[in-house]
Amino acid sequence: MVFYLIGLGLGNVEDITVKGMKIIKQCDKVFLESYTSILSSGLSPDALEKFYEREIIPADRDMVESDSDKILCNAKDNDVALLVVGDPFGATTHSDIYLRAIEKGISVKVIHNASIMNAIGCTGLQLYNFGETVSFCFWTETNKPISYFDKILLNLERNQHTLCLLDIKTNEINIEELMKGRMKRNPPQYMTANEAAEQMIFASEALKEKDSKRLLTNETMIVAIARLGWDDQKIVYAPIKDFANIDMGPPLHSVIIPSPHCHPMELEMLNIFRYKNM
Amino acid sequence: MVFYLIGLGLGNVEDITVKGMKIIKQCDKVFLESYTSILSSGLSPDALEKFYEREIIPADRDMVESDSDKILCNAKDNDVALLVVGDPFGATTHSDIYLRAIEKGISVKVIHNASIMNAIGCTGLQLYNFGETVSFCFWTETNKPISYFDKILLNLERNQHTLCLLDIKTNEINIEELMKGRMKRNPPQYMTANEAAEQMIFASEALKEKDSKRLLTNETMIVAIARLGWDDQKIVYAPIKDFANIDMGPPLHSVIIPSPHCHPMELEMLNIFRYKNM
Repeated sequence: MVFYLIGLGLGNVEDITVKGMKIIKQCDKVFLESYTSILSSGLSPDALEKFYEREIIPADRDMVESDSDKILCNAKDNDVALLVVGDPFGATTHSDIYLRAIEKGISVKVIHNASIMNAIGCTGLQLYNFGETVSFCFWTETNKPISYFDKILLNLERNQHTLCLLDIKTNEINIEELMKGRMKRNPPQYMTANEAAEQMIFASEALKEKDSKRLLTNETMIVAIARLGWDDQKIVYAPIKDFANIDMGPPLHSVIIPSPHCHPMELEMLNIFRYKNM
Repeated sequence: MVFYLIGLGLGNVEDITVKGMKIIKQCDKVFLESYTSILSSGLSPDALEKFYEREIIPADRDMVESDSDKILCNAKDNDVALLVVGDPFGATTHSDIYLRAIEKGISVKVIHNASIMNAIGCTGLQLYNFGETVSFCFWTETNKPISYFDKILLNLERNQHTLCLLDIKTNEINIEELMKGRMKRNPPQYMTANEAAEQMIFASEALKEKDSKRLLTNETMIVAIARLGWDDQKIVYAPIKDFANIDMGPPLHSVIIPSPHCHPMELEMLNIFRYKNM
């Protein structure tokens, strides 16, 4: 039958498309990729079950990525859907489960929706002026990788904006507890725009010589975005150094480093979001 | 009151979100940006009026871009919506009308949806590996600009994919008729993936010396996408030279030039769409 990959959009249950909703109501089994959707209370399994008036089966990362047979075995004789926050081919692709379905002779249909990769257009920055996207990772005391800043500098040199996706740690095993013989998970961790700004200040110092035009300093204006597409979405445009004092609120945060030469219309839009220190 | 910018998605009336549909039903006036939506019969004003059971007012390019007061004057005392194919901040931004609304003290809300900028993820190519997007323009006998190929070469050198948006000409005045004193519009013109491939062959010859690694030749594998998100969407992965004989069907077409070093999973996805010459 058909395996549907359905994007839920970014905010709450009503961000599903009418087409997506119809399919969910008709499918025999509906799985929810639950390791990212944990983020938005508006897209919790409970909220979705209430909205669709049907059972929703949580699917963790392992099930979607390495044990997809558990989902696909249902799709041989019946229609099955996997619900995904954002778009099924947004920041996380679902190529693996797509390919496994095709291998099994199951036809796959994708129901698109907004994802962070296009919804950031609401900052006014033109999507076609974005260079490569980079992913920031959590630093530790001893490990502070800055390799992704090379990509940012290349984008800046080419007058391109850079979307920075910030690290998420969910379901991590607590090492200290494990050494005591106890299996415990750490609470989820989401990198804040503030932590990203701190990394930028550190990296801009470390890359001083490489960045001869000083395109990235603590005075560089950046855009922080919190809870994109949610009702309480927050966008702030400010110099990197100001983020020591800016509270973006709960996760999920992302950051954009705009090109050094924005279009006037882009700047006019960004100024709507300019941080006003009260 | 509120001015809503609502994305319709890519395919047909059912690609609207549940949230978007609710708002459309409640608004006093609903405009449809009609110069792009002309493309999809599934998103024609008639189809939309039927689906929403309400009047939809077509708004042409002039009204949206330079005469936005005609739309916004309604939003001072009432809720007004402007419907846009794709996402309101996708390939075409709506910054201008957004800024004019803010100036007038009208609050603006954006209802996101899928756009070509993220839905191309369904090719399996990772969105974060895309470099800058380029726009191809129609060539004439005497004018064959190839400047956008410089951006493509830079992306290829950085191992990035390039999304190529292809030219659209709608509502153009017929010059021959105008010289005879008659005001007539040309039928709309949409660049095909085949025309884009022809440009690539021409440009790859012209840029032979600049492109010392020969990253772009007529053997380069590209992805053509027709009617993205429609029921009859077509994706073909083939060498540039083969597009002389490939029929992608009706508009709208786009092309992706993948990075020279795709991830194995990206290649596995692309091979699903490989052209099979029967």
